[in-house]
Amino acid sequence: MQLDDFREHRFLGIIDWTLRGVGQVVFQNNPLSGLVILLGILINSWIYAAICILGAAAGTLTAIILRADRALVRDGLFGFNGALVALALVAFTSENFRTGAVPSLAMTAYLIFGAALSTMAFASIAALLGPHKVAPLTMPFVLIGWLFLFAVLKFDAIDAGPMAKPVSPDQFSYTAPYMLPTWYMGIGTSIGQIFFQDNWITGYIILIGVGLHSRIAAGMGLLGAIVGTAVAALFGGPEGAIRDGLFGYNAALTAMALGGFFLVLTWNSFFYAVFGAIVSAWLWASIAIFLKPIGMPVLTSTFVIVTWLMLIGQYAFKALVPVPPAEATTPEHNRRRYVEGKRHPSGPE
Amino acid sequence: MQLDDFREHRFLGIIDWTLRGVGQVVFQNNPLSGLVILLGILINSWIYAAICILGAAAGTLTAIILRADRALVRDGLFGFNGALVALALVAFTSENFRTGAVPSLAMTAYLIFGAALSTMAFASIAALLGPHKVAPLTMPFVLIGWLFLFAVLKFDAIDAGPMAKPVSPDQFSYTAPYMLPTWYMGIGTSIGQIFFQDNWITGYIILIGVGLHSRIAAGMGLLGAIVGTAVAALFGGPEGAIRDGLFGYNAALTAMALGGFFLVLTWNSFFYAVFGAIVSAWLWASIAIFLKPIGMPVLTSTFVIVTWLMLIGQYAFKALVPVPPAEATTPEHNRRRYVEGKRHPSGPE
Amino acid sequence: MQLDDFREHRFLGIIDWTLRGVGQVVFQNNPLSGLVILLGILINSWIYAAICILGAAAGTLTAIILRADRALVRDGLFGFNGALVALALVAFTSENFRTGAVPSLAMTAYLIFGAALSTMAFASIAALLGPHKVAPLTMPFVLIGWLFLFAVLKFDAIDAGPMAKPVSPDQFSYTAPYMLPTWYMGIGTSIGQIFFQDNWITGYIILIGVGLHSRIAAGMGLLGAIVGTAVAALFGGPEGAIRDGLFGYNAALTAMALGGFFLVLTWNSFFYAVFGAIVSAWLWASIAIFLKPIGMPVLTSTFVIVTWLMLIGQYAFKALVPVPPAEATTPEHNRRRYVEGKRHPSGPE
Repeated sequence: MQLDDFREHRFLGIIDWTLRGVGQVVFQNNPLSGLVILLGILINSWIYAAICILGAAAGTLTAIILRADRALVRDGLFGFNGALVALALVAFTSENFRTGAVPSLAMTAYLIFGAALSTMAFASIAALLGPHKVAPLTMPFVLIGWLFLFAVLKFDAIDAGPMAKPVSPDQFSYTAPYMLPTWYMGIGTSIGQIFFQDNWITGYIILIGVGLHSRIAAGMGLLGAIVGTAVAALFGGPEGAIRDGLFGYNAALTAMALGGFFLVLTWNSFFYAVFGAIVSAWLWASIAIFLKPIGMPVLTSTFVIVTWLMLIGQYAFKALVPVPPAEATTPEHNRRRYVEGKRHPSGPE
Repeated sequence: MQLDDFREHRFLGIIDWTLRGVGQVVFQNNPLSGLVILLGILINSWIYAAICILGAAAGTLTAIILRADRALVRDGLFGFNGALVALALVAFTSENFRTGAVPSLAMTAYLIFGAALSTMAFASIAALLGPHKVAPLTMPFVLIGWLFLFAVLKFDAIDAGPMAKPVSPDQFSYTAPYMLPTWYMGIGTSIGQIFFQDNWITGYIILIGVGLHSRIAAGMGLLGAIVGTAVAALFGGPEGAIRDGLFGYNAALTAMALGGFFLVLTWNSFFYAVFGAIVSAWLWASIAIFLKPIGMPVLTSTFVIVTWLMLIGQYAFKALVPVPPAEATTPEHNRRRYVEGKRHPSGPE
Repeated sequence: MQLDDFREHRFLGIIDWTLRGVGQVVFQNNPLSGLVILLGILINSWIYAAICILGAAAGTLTAIILRADRALVRDGLFGFNGALVALALVAFTSENFRTGAVPSLAMTAYLIFGAALSTMAFASIAALLGPHKVAPLTMPFVLIGWLFLFAVLKFDAIDAGPMAKPVSPDQFSYTAPYMLPTWYMGIGTSIGQIFFQDNWITGYIILIGVGLHSRIAAGMGLLGAIVGTAVAALFGGPEGAIRDGLFGYNAALTAMALGGFFLVLTWNSFFYAVFGAIVSAWLWASIAIFLKPIGMPVLTSTFVIVTWLMLIGQYAFKALVPVPPAEATTPEHNRRRYVEGKRHPSGPE
């Protein structure tokens, strides 16, 4: 248990927790998953890799300073929203979305505050949803991402270029035909976009990182990306947006959340997850169009809205087997406990 | 009790539950009310009548597949939001708002998914509001209506015309004078608009359907429509919007909800309901103007917001006698139980 | 205890409760604070002073009619949102924002209804947040302010001029240099803007009113205003908006809420409050830009959002000592009880 020793270390522990924070973006409480994901980001841009670590560390440190529950800190739960806040702020204020730019000092202070606030928001949303046994997901990131992105455009000290990245489907051409790269690039980039990486190879490396901890999770992520991409194509979405992974990243997250992680994987929850992925792909377009007049990106709002709408009422539906967030580990483990619980109903849970 | 046999039937039960779902849009847990309402819609447009049934059935079937509580399914509670989602999607994507158009296959799949999602949203919002003993009302419909309407405009496979229906008061002329038809048509259409029916005769037929199950509910609905129309006229709202029933449909729903259904009807709650109807008429204009830049209709959001604001805190006000959603049947019955409870405080509740 | 006799008086009590309502806008449950604040407003405009009283009285009377808890009524808790709703409606529909205009009869009816609805909204939001021991703050005002301001612009009977007041930073020049008045006027007006008073002297008088009841609260309010103003200057915000107190009023409220009132004042909560004030200043700009396309002012939404995000999860952070709203009196008293509680842990709380 060398890794566990590392995790408990007084000073080096933060490295473990930060890596887990990176992994938790895609539900993986595992430092190796986090490391592989960071490598995937690194081959796309060292700036994003550094910013991802900075954000996750800032969120985690805030939790430590405020004396949050150590178990949650160690699971990386105070890091993943901070990582996303930091990535989003750099991505949408850089002239080149693909590689990002090294942030100024003012911007760095700003994104550290954003990551810190995401830790407080995580605790607040967790408190609100606690009675319903539903996790905050990436809502802290979405809220703070929007709030901090708006303000950034109006301060002189922060030199925000024009938002280089299209944020809505109607900014893409509707006449381009779908081709082979539409598919393999679109599916890979769908995973990449979860971390704001416009790079399909990065996407597949992230999937490998997920697969190290849970093959089912990696499979559901891939399935979600495929479903999102296919639904967009079937309903005639613009090729550029599909290839960019924009229809798929929320679908991938929804499929992972519902397909085994927060619901025990059964045929019922499998189809429930596919339903959620389809709806997430549609609603990405919806929220993108809603936000376009104010120039805001969708972030992962669609994933959070769809997953909440489908999970908060989960106890009303006997066809589903909920996994409370505090017990959710991996789809494999969640399912094993459930099957064993059914076999030995009188045994300890 | 022939009707009750029908309700329990293994295969025909769904017909009963779907009809109740139609009735539940206006708080009537009664298949005959649902049938009369459908007839009212039918004389305006057979397309809408069919879509209304399709949506209510899709929502109800989703609940059955997910193994929701049978008592709620039988009361039609998983049908009314689905009916409204389906109606809204057809109404706002048809070239002719008044009659609607037969949806394409892609659109039909899309609206069935929307109705299905409304069932999940109903369970989620019910869970969130459970501790406060407040019902989800039509919020599932409003949320999903907005989300699904946005996306629809951006998919090639769904051929959405320009939104034919004005959605905001400033799209109407302010110089037209109020005349007799402003009144009798405006009041009737206020009831019709609850189901997206631009037809004042349909509105009065719907009221008859309501009256079959509860005369007080029909009376409060009529009163709400009158209040909404009168307030709009008093404050100088545009004639076309008033005659179209746009100021009145939220007011009618608020008056029904507060005037006997979720609060025992007393003089206090009567004036409370009138207050709510007045505010609903004003705020229809407010939300219409807010949503106009993005071309979205108000739906019944005003009714939900006002009713929630006035009901969630109900236990703080001793002047009101709350009726928990699970016990709310008809204004008449709610009141009888309350009066009897006061007479025999030691008896069974 | 002359004042307490006054407070219990059958008919004159309402005067005491209304004055407390004015004080509660800045967390002061004290009629003298309310009186001094009203004097501060009066030297700027007698119209606003009268409207402030009218709104607070309307909100309080509504609570009395609905038979709300007398203790809450006596603490002025049903008055402060009504006062703000009334002030906002007059401020943003008057040709001259600075002095306001005497409202028409229709407008007066409208703002009384708005103040009354704020009382119901207060009860509802208090019920929703009750389990988390967090107060509704000024959210009832923000919600109803927005809803009622929108509608007002579309009714003929209410003669709303063009909104005279700039509502967003980009409506100010970015080239004006910061000068001495930027500072002393900006800080004072930050306090004034809490009550929509574009007058820095009024701001300092309000601070004196606060200081009569709690010196720490006055100090934190001043600190918040300074932090908000300094942060805006540091990040290059426009001079006109800074001098107008627009960056500072949310920061001042957040600093008061977190620095001693809802959290026991310690070094931890002091820095927590400063953090909140910094973020509130940034996010004022954010929400202002978000709302500008629809012409809506920010009101105190930033304060509520930041304070909620930082308070709802407070029990997750052992570095903070929460004060439940029902026990929050003054920062001095909150701290004394906490220190005594630590000394005599077995004694009565």
